[in-house]
Amino acid sequence: MTTRPHRLGVLTSGGDAPGMNACLRAIVRTAIYHNLEVIGFQRGYRGVLLGDYQALDARSVTNIIQRGGTILGSARAPEMHHPEGLKQAASTLKGLGIDALLVIGGNGSMQGALALADYWQGQLIGLPGTIDNDLGGTDWTIGFFTALDTALDAVDRLRDTADAFDRIFLLEVMGRHAGWIALFTGIGGGAEEILIPEQPYDSAALSARIKEYRARNKRSVIVVVAEGACDGGVAQVAADIEGHGFETRTCVLGHIQRGGSPVALDRYLATELGVFAVQAALEGATLVLAGKLGQTNQLVPLREALADGKHRPPTQLLEINRFLAI
Amino acid sequence: MTTRPHRLGVLTSGGDAPGMNACLRAIVRTAIYHNLEVIGFQRGYRGVLLGDYQALDARSVTNIIQRGGTILGSARAPEMHHPEGLKQAASTLKGLGIDALLVIGGNGSMQGALALADYWQGQLIGLPGTIDNDLGGTDWTIGFFTALDTALDAVDRLRDTADAFDRIFLLEVMGRHAGWIALFTGIGGGAEEILIPEQPYDSAALSARIKEYRARNKRSVIVVVAEGACDGGVAQVAADIEGHGFETRTCVLGHIQRGGSPVALDRYLATELGVFAVQAALEGATLVLAGKLGQTNQLVPLREALADGKHRPPTQLLEINRFLAI
Amino acid sequence: MTTRPHRLGVLTSGGDAPGMNACLRAIVRTAIYHNLEVIGFQRGYRGVLLGDYQALDARSVTNIIQRGGTILGSARAPEMHHPEGLKQAASTLKGLGIDALLVIGGNGSMQGALALADYWQGQLIGLPGTIDNDLGGTDWTIGFFTALDTALDAVDRLRDTADAFDRIFLLEVMGRHAGWIALFTGIGGGAEEILIPEQPYDSAALSARIKEYRARNKRSVIVVVAEGACDGGVAQVAADIEGHGFETRTCVLGHIQRGGSPVALDRYLATELGVFAVQAALEGATLVLAGKLGQTNQLVPLREALADGKHRPPTQLLEINRFLAI
Amino acid sequence: MTTRPHRLGVLTSGGDAPGMNACLRAIVRTAIYHNLEVIGFQRGYRGVLLGDYQALDARSVTNIIQRGGTILGSARAPEMHHPEGLKQAASTLKGLGIDALLVIGGNGSMQGALALADYWQGQLIGLPGTIDNDLGGTDWTIGFFTALDTALDAVDRLRDTADAFDRIFLLEVMGRHAGWIALFTGIGGGAEEILIPEQPYDSAALSARIKEYRARNKRSVIVVVAEGACDGGVAQVAADIEGHGFETRTCVLGHIQRGGSPVALDRYLATELGVFAVQAALEGATLVLAGKLGQTNQLVPLREALADGKHRPPTQLLEINRFLAI
Repeated sequence: MTTRPHRLGVLTSGGDAPGMNACLRAIVRTAIYHNLEVIGFQRGYRGVLLGDYQALDARSVTNIIQRGGTILGSARAPEMHHPEGLKQAASTLKGLGIDALLVIGGNGSMQGALALADYWQGQLIGLPGTIDNDLGGTDWTIGFFTALDTALDAVDRLRDTADAFDRIFLLEVMGRHAGWIALFTGIGGGAEEILIPEQPYDSAALSARIKEYRARNKRSVIVVVAEGACDGGVAQVAADIEGHGFETRTCVLGHIQRGGSPVALDRYLATELGVFAVQAALEGATLVLAGKLGQTNQLVPLREALADGKHRPPTQLLEINRFLAI
Repeated sequence: MTTRPHRLGVLTSGGDAPGMNACLRAIVRTAIYHNLEVIGFQRGYRGVLLGDYQALDARSVTNIIQRGGTILGSARAPEMHHPEGLKQAASTLKGLGIDALLVIGGNGSMQGALALADYWQGQLIGLPGTIDNDLGGTDWTIGFFTALDTALDAVDRLRDTADAFDRIFLLEVMGRHAGWIALFTGIGGGAEEILIPEQPYDSAALSARIKEYRARNKRSVIVVVAEGACDGGVAQVAADIEGHGFETRTCVLGHIQRGGSPVALDRYLATELGVFAVQAALEGATLVLAGKLGQTNQLVPLREALADGKHRPPTQLLEINRFLAI
Repeated sequence: MTTRPHRLGVLTSGGDAPGMNACLRAIVRTAIYHNLEVIGFQRGYRGVLLGDYQALDARSVTNIIQRGGTILGSARAPEMHHPEGLKQAASTLKGLGIDALLVIGGNGSMQGALALADYWQGQLIGLPGTIDNDLGGTDWTIGFFTALDTALDAVDRLRDTADAFDRIFLLEVMGRHAGWIALFTGIGGGAEEILIPEQPYDSAALSARIKEYRARNKRSVIVVVAEGACDGGVAQVAADIEGHGFETRTCVLGHIQRGGSPVALDRYLATELGVFAVQAALEGATLVLAGKLGQTNQLVPLREALADGKHRPPTQLLEINRFLAI
Repeated sequence: MTTRPHRLGVLTSGGDAPGMNACLRAIVRTAIYHNLEVIGFQRGYRGVLLGDYQALDARSVTNIIQRGGTILGSARAPEMHHPEGLKQAASTLKGLGIDALLVIGGNGSMQGALALADYWQGQLIGLPGTIDNDLGGTDWTIGFFTALDTALDAVDRLRDTADAFDRIFLLEVMGRHAGWIALFTGIGGGAEEILIPEQPYDSAALSARIKEYRARNKRSVIVVVAEGACDGGVAQVAADIEGHGFETRTCVLGHIQRGGSPVALDRYLATELGVFAVQAALEGATLVLAGKLGQTNQLVPLREALADGKHRPPTQLLEINRFLAI
């Protein structure tokens, strides 16, 4: 039998994502509404390891719904891969009397939560916070929509200038293991080519198509490249294309994609899932991810959400793009 | 037995919405890929009535994916409520040899399509294009996401200045019959109050809550008001609040919400549904709406999509907002 | 002989403007660099009247350069029109040992500073902070550029939707006494008509020109109206146009124009003038406005900056617009 | 004696800049108002060389004031460095009966105009169109303000994520020979470090300061690097910093800075200078740049505008930034 929790812990972990603050706000205020105390750990699991935390009241989350980043900070915590670190984290949580820990983050953060469960008896609830949209158990992750619009804005700007010249532009976007950002940015921006990790990189085929575009007198060619699309990344792609005699220009968006005020949908998702996760905590849930499937909030076992190959982007869009970006 | 269509007609109708152009691009290029001809009618049904149209080729939709508005124009066509008009429209379509007509628009436009079916034997396929998100048969309509971010940007800006002063700000957003924009804008912006048509307007309760905010020394109060939230609209709400001795300031966003470059999600939705609708036409579908339910593209009978009360916003968010915007 | 000041006071007053925070940051950090203490008064002169203030150190202005509004708050202070209030303000300043007071604001705020000089012997230095750009002694005021881009974005969005329909759109922008925002927004947006307080309103001529646009089949007509362009404001203009049989739609931007993250030029101007004003204080300046004339920072006597009719917008742009917006 | 011109030529040349279209619109409509014909050459001087042009009427520039890029296209034209090419260009201009050629571009484009003057007797008038702001004879160039806000948005986004982590971020912005964009972006974004070509690169001093920031526990460090700040560019700077044991992340904005809808000030500048240049042509001016000095439109001899070292950025801002970004 689970007893009602009295004290929640919350942390943001891994790469920060726009909407993490909106999620924190929803969690804190829902918790307070239900007479729960909330402890916020600084810089992800590192705050748990070091006992670096603060009590969060309703005012502590005032006017953060529109802010990028995370007021709690984030960090990597390699200690969470070792029993020593996990024991230390568990010890802090016990010492503080935390009944349930809410973890906002991506794959690595959820794996950390799973590992922690071997050392700590409290409830563990994950919330999908990552721009990469590569987590199972949810259609969308908090931050994806904002990152998408940031990358799309870059494509639109490139198109303006690409049309003025006769050049091939390469835009590297985030996504070491997942092509979500590249795929949706490419489709939304009308990019001629989209390279993602889920599709083998075929340099010869790419160059052949670029030759074709040129032959057809297409004014501009934009290639959206996910970080992990091929060995050597965007630099390799540029070298390959230039090897066929075409001039290219490269932009690397990098961490710009992580920042910025969250768009409406990220705030909505962050808010809904924040409220939902606290309610789940009150009902005794543990080792679940609070996700959105279709229009429904759902709890999915963490282990299932993390199962390999779970949340692939719709690669059929690549086929569609062949006839759309003609 | 249905025969494969050879010539598609397409029009954009009703209030324009960001993403209509992206949808046109997807329709035209998918059709061309399948060796279909495409005729674009100018200004919605009016173009059908007046025989005002143009053939659309692949280049005619170049570089419009990022543009607001609609290159075909839109208009109201009251003639479509009368047999005379419907007969005339049918006659144009027959004369042009149109096999299938794709209609991008909202409720009124879909009703026009249904009515037309009594006079014309061709295939009729609807695509949800309206910022109001008030159409059944789809979770989201093309244009909603962009309108949302436009309205949200307004709330964020008001918050900056509202915090500097001690004032109550009213923001009127679109939605004569539907509270979707107001509800999501309010939740996303952390608005203290959200007034929508789906909820009876209670002036006394509103003023009581505003008194409470003041008593608690809340720095700023923002009230998001849907056009159709009450008789008299935002002006009445302002009068009611001022009647209790509070100073207010009003902004009326109006048609600003219809314009602007579509955000990524509207372009993605518009593209997916555009491709899907042409494929549906090829397979002989008729009198259906090409919509998105969860992650799936679905064809829903138009009559069903239009059934009353079908697509209400999640009003439970109003309850949630009570404890979030404290 | 002036002695070097040791303690600066600073306040933001009147309507808030984007860039006020960037200016505060520059003032505080320049002052600290010169070993000055800085006292920030809450809500403009009200903080001086009520003794509501805080010491500002380098960290207190961290990460505010990009924030709209003002961390010090602003307010109206009618007490500053009366000897009683002025004496009280002077008394606070003396009591706190303030040597120089820096006032960021518009016309009213500078008038307050002038009036205060009759009761207080300290140095008084003004900084032009108002979206209205209607202050003498400077080419540009902090906040004008951001307000302009906010209003311009509205015109661009209206254009998208106006082109789709056959309608006349009215956009009311700020400017009760000055047409700067309306004029530059109209020129930048390619508005067909621009109505400003500096030009008499001629309803008949306006309607005649609109008839002409219609006759020439211009797809859309946008009229930018400054708040103070005529008695009755935008509602009167709408009524006049509709009286000639044209349908109109109105948007009222209101306080949305005051908010938002400042654009680069407002941050640059705010930073340069903030540094310059502290240097002026160190050199003993008083009763001056720290302004920008051409590329040069200049100190202009406050009385001169406030002289009537000093900073009129370039109304010849209205003539130019006649042939540009054809 | 000069006779009134009857036919104007216009081209956009060099790197495209937001506002070039607004400038074209102003030129075309002002010319038409004065009963001049306008010929637009495609892709800069290449259009003159190849005789690739079109007549521009009032409608040809409809709805382009808000568009990035240039509807005429741009290109490099190395032929303009050789007598052969110049003779050919002169021959086209004579053949078309062009009386005056308006060239919108940067340094290279103005040099091309000067060279052309040896072979062609018509009037040559330059307009400053380049994001680099590195042209003499004008305080500001068309496109600079928009590029600035694009780069600034990147800094703001980096700050969000930089604050969440403990990392050093490098942002490479455009400016091979001029530090204007880097300097203003850095000041506006509150960057800790700004590296520009006008200042010798001192790797040791930079690393020393970064160590200091770290020692003071500054949460984030952002370094804005102009392309031409040092040999090896941003990659070298990253290597130097990492050599001292600090982790860095790099973003390369690249051509993103050239695109986007122009901000209000670029449209205003483009419009004013476009009108002014046509008026100057009517009055017989030649071999001048139509620039903005302070609030005044001025004609400056092209040779003077191009004189070396003419338009250096205010490097004293680098000193100021030392105490602002503490």
